[in-house]
Amino acid sequence: MRAVVVSIGRELARGLSLDTHSRDIARALSALGINVVRHVTLDDDAAAIAEGLRDAAADADVIVASGGLGPTQDDCTRFGLAEAMGEELVENSEAMAHLETFAKARGRRVRGANRVQALLPASARALPNPVGTAVGIEANLGEARLFCIPGVPVEMHTMFDEQVLPQLADSPDARVMVVRTVRTFGLFESVVAERLPDLMTPGRHPHVGTAVHSGLIDIHIYASGNRDEAEALVAADVATVRKRLGTAVFGEGHTGLEEAVAALLAERGATVALAESCTGGLVAATLVNVPGMSDFFVEGVVAYANASKVRALGVDERLIADHGAVSEPVARAMAEGVRVRAGADVALGITGVAGPGGGTVEKPVGTVWMALADASGTEAARHLLMGDRAQIRLRAAYYALNMLRLWLMEGPQR
Amino acid sequence: MRAVVVSIGRELARGLSLDTHSRDIARALSALGINVVRHVTLDDDAAAIAEGLRDAAADADVIVASGGLGPTQDDCTRFGLAEAMGEELVENSEAMAHLETFAKARGRRVRGANRVQALLPASARALPNPVGTAVGIEANLGEARLFCIPGVPVEMHTMFDEQVLPQLADSPDARVMVVRTVRTFGLFESVVAERLPDLMTPGRHPHVGTAVHSGLIDIHIYASGNRDEAEALVAADVATVRKRLGTAVFGEGHTGLEEAVAALLAERGATVALAESCTGGLVAATLVNVPGMSDFFVEGVVAYANASKVRALGVDERLIADHGAVSEPVARAMAEGVRVRAGADVALGITGVAGPGGGTVEKPVGTVWMALADASGTEAARHLLMGDRAQIRLRAAYYALNMLRLWLMEGPQR
Repeated sequence: MRAVVVSIGRELARGLSLDTHSRDIARALSALGINVVRHVTLDDDAAAIAEGLRDAAADADVIVASGGLGPTQDDCTRFGLAEAMGEELVENSEAMAHLETFAKARGRRVRGANRVQALLPASARALPNPVGTAVGIEANLGEARLFCIPGVPVEMHTMFDEQVLPQLADSPDARVMVVRTVRTFGLFESVVAERLPDLMTPGRHPHVGTAVHSGLIDIHIYASGNRDEAEALVAADVATVRKRLGTAVFGEGHTGLEEAVAALLAERGATVALAESCTGGLVAATLVNVPGMSDFFVEGVVAYANASKVRALGVDERLIADHGAVSEPVARAMAEGVRVRAGADVALGITGVAGPGGGTVEKPVGTVWMALADASGTEAARHLLMGDRAQIRLRAAYYALNMLRLWLMEGPQR
Repeated sequence: MRAVVVSIGRELARGLSLDTHSRDIARALSALGINVVRHVTLDDDAAAIAEGLRDAAADADVIVASGGLGPTQDDCTRFGLAEAMGEELVENSEAMAHLETFAKARGRRVRGANRVQALLPASARALPNPVGTAVGIEANLGEARLFCIPGVPVEMHTMFDEQVLPQLADSPDARVMVVRTVRTFGLFESVVAERLPDLMTPGRHPHVGTAVHSGLIDIHIYASGNRDEAEALVAADVATVRKRLGTAVFGEGHTGLEEAVAALLAERGATVALAESCTGGLVAATLVNVPGMSDFFVEGVVAYANASKVRALGVDERLIADHGAVSEPVARAMAEGVRVRAGADVALGITGVAGPGGGTVEKPVGTVWMALADASGTEAARHLLMGDRAQIRLRAAYYALNMLRLWLMEGPQR
């Protein structure tokens, strides 16, 4: 089965926004063994959309198009689709009912500009949108089956997962591509390559590749064929990777570092408190990505200003004066202070220079001190992190979560 | 002048990697006034590349293609190009000289696999690559002028900037395209459409379009022509948009909501404290995206557990028992508690049901109460936010920052 992925939007065509939808849709289709032959990004122009969709239908069995279904006049996917199909747009009763229900739930009426969202080509079918006003459109275009879904990210993802993927997964000729991802933190990519040379040989099946982002290294393992064989091959490689990379492995698939930490907190029944300076609440916010953390995450303090470190965490002013706010003693005092104050089993303190200003020769931008305190003592680590302000803060948050993860797995590292 | 941007690579087509090159190239071409009619992402397949390039040549005056010029067997852009041109690949003397110079500088010889990089269609011209082995290719394909450059990021950027852009910028009919973006928060997209019907009429110049993400609505205004005229037209539309959308406008270009808040905090000399429950530190972390916030952001408390709301923020336990943790009285008490404790001018309290569990008929998932306390009193607002857990938390953080922004602009809203 061949697919073409289409993204529609002038801001995408002109390069003002980055198109992540095509990547996400192509990846999900590929995982079903569907051959994504190309992506196309089109301008908000009905004639161009009509031509692009017709070209796609000439090459593909399935077309997934996102964007251009909103209520404003620059949204013209439905017009391009109708032109490509050679049909009139007519008010679709399901789509109109959806608009009315959606408006009513918010105590509003369907307004003029929104009514266009109920217009569909005569032979097309409306796809329900649980999270927005724009219904999707399913239609036949030549020999191809076409799905148009909104471009608003949450709507695109929800509708693709709920309305599009299930229909394609049932398709009888989908050959299976099995992909599993082993997620690691704390190793250099070259070290990963040195530990897995036999698995990463070009041309080997399964194919094993790495992808790096913000200090996390993902190891992707791909096998194709019939499902049982492909799954067995991939499982064997996953076991090898896990064995060779040891505690650097924190999970599989889309598991976040915070989910690994949350699972360990639940397993150990441990409670945690956080004192953050340079990360500014990012460690807490990342941990709270996981639902149900209120049993384990007792309290977080964002002590961004020095006065707040003193008042809220009980850090001795002289420590800051003598060593600077970004220092081992201050990180230790932050962790110890918040642990006692919150009555938690374990606590982290994080202080660093996120930049772009504030760096010195001794403490350049990217210097981050972090400490972990438990009932038996405190350990500290210094990292020199690369990237811009956002990258440094994100990496610092990951290192802090990883410090907690290793403590939960292996106990104190001192 | 019309352009098509092409990216070539299996990892891109399959969605394993994100294509940022098309965005970067399209943005630079658009800034020259070149009309980027579409992007196409192609698999590493010579026949598909030939077809894709021919299709592009039928629609465009200029084609910029990146990727697939490396020495490995999956790189086949040159083969696809030769097929599209109906020419043989021949060893190009300039390309060979480049390979030899590059190898020599590294004390190596041109190896077998690299020799393929000297093969170009007979009528094509080599484009020097100062930072890698792969020379680029300039050729005529039908009526179109085609540039193929490597996909390795540093090589793509260097060659696009040094070899491609200067040739296009000199082109006599290159006109300027001016784009400005007005950023707004807090309006429905249909309301924006209703307030700007004349600006958003299809075919109008300048073109005005919207893009929505997580409750933010961007209004993009595009004009082409000579620079002074285009800038004057866009400036007039920016003024109209600002006037009609009023305080919903928080900035232009890439300005974040947090930057707008930071600028107002600095202007007013106001200090802020935060008490976060469902957002779990996300408001603090977003505010700290802006460097230099330590003068204004006094302290944040992440009181995720109820016990922490009581102990750290002084929320009366009975309020939680009587009204629930997600309620107006608790949001108010959180804001008031952290304001007093931190000694700040203004404080926010945020409590909500981020899901996926915890929703009830009265307080469904997405219900968020937020309060703003200052010396003269406290105001509160309830929002019903859509999306998954991450989306609800992000939108809640934006609504909270916007509440603070409006207070800084207009004073208390009670």
